[in-house]
Amino acid sequence: MAGAGEDVQALIDLMARLPGLGPRSARRAVLHLLKKRGQLMRPLAQSMAEVADRVRPCINCGNIGTEELCAICQSEKRTTGEICVVEDVADLWAMERGGAFRGRYHVLGGTLSALDAVGPEDLRIPHLMDRIAADGVTEVILALNATVDGQTTAHYIADQLQGRDVTVTSLAQGVPIGGELDYLDDGTIGAALRARKQI
Amino acid sequence: MAGAGEDVQALIDLMARLPGLGPRSARRAVLHLLKKRGQLMRPLAQSMAEVADRVRPCINCGNIGTEELCAICQSEKRTTGEICVVEDVADLWAMERGGAFRGRYHVLGGTLSALDAVGPEDLRIPHLMDRIAADGVTEVILALNATVDGQTTAHYIADQLQGRDVTVTSLAQGVPIGGELDYLDDGTIGAALRARKQI
Ligand SMILES: [Zn+2]
Ligand SMILES: [Zn+2]
Repeated sequence: MAGAGEDVQALIDLMARLPGLGPRSARRAVLHLLKKRGQLMRPLAQSMAEVADRVRPCINCGNIGTEELCAICQSEKRTTGEICVVEDVADLWAMERGGAFRGRYHVLGGTLSALDAVGPEDLRIPHLMDRIAADGVTEVILALNATVDGQTTAHYIADQLQGRDVTVTSLAQGVPIGGELDYLDDGTIGAALRARKQI
Repeated sequence: MAGAGEDVQALIDLMARLPGLGPRSARRAVLHLLKKRGQLMRPLAQSMAEVADRVRPCINCGNIGTEELCAICQSEKRTTGEICVVEDVADLWAMERGGAFRGRYHVLGGTLSALDAVGPEDLRIPHLMDRIAADGVTEVILALNATVDGQTTAHYIADQLQGRDVTVTSLAQGVPIGGELDYLDDGTIGAALRARKQI
């Protein structure tokens, strides 16, 4: 685009690659940034660079953080006997906003999918089994999305855990069919957790 | 929010201050960035920092660029006899996307507003008058938004130019009442420019 200058256009093009932003909203965002250079643009650029440098997956649960173990895995206030299994970090954040769960997490990094040829080894399922064996886990809560792949994955994990001395539950009431956790309001997630049922 | 870590949460909070992004879309954008650290997050942070450092308003027209004179004011392909007056840089970009205008611009930086106590001295109107006197300008195209303030500003400028040897026109056909240039499709802007009428 003429008029914006090459550097500014390059910035707009990068912004337009964010989910939810198209070319027009990227332009508006960049103009806003240019108007708030000191208050917003520089702090945002710096925050983004720092997070890019420092953030990494927690070696225990797959949550993101800036240390080897994430804040949740480090916290002594969280019970180690309950593991809540989620598809991705967005779902972990959604569970945390609900504020109802006080255990630890396990982020799978996706779901099993025949179509996309995603098998258990492609997710963090073997590592989940190791954690359950090692950590004195008494309950595994499968907080997977109510999609076909999410439920396939939940059943696969429940099958793997058959015969082990661990209660397997799933979120129940309140998660609509086809619904994705990250789109639910916080109260709904809390209610679904409290009403979780054994599989 | 627990779970995201302080650094990541700070980044989400900054992203949520961009127009068109709320807390949820900011979270999704940050998760996307975290997944594309090398391809998107680092380049975006760097591009943003560079633009924040280098960009400044063109001393001639108020467009943004990385040098004293913007690319349009530097270009010898652009006629100097026509000045297109716009409210802000977003409108200049919208005109450029139309591709129909081959002259130079003048960015006012807003509109006159009794309510917000914005007078001619608060905009770049005196500088516009200087440019018109100095540059051998033959036509001033008032490409202001079809809002009350936009039209008040257009009439004020047209009044100031009365008696000067310069044709004053405005965008005509195709700009809907209350419409903002930045929301129009590119063809509409081109048509409005070609059908401009003398005030
Ligand atoms: Zn962790
Ligand atoms: Zn310029």
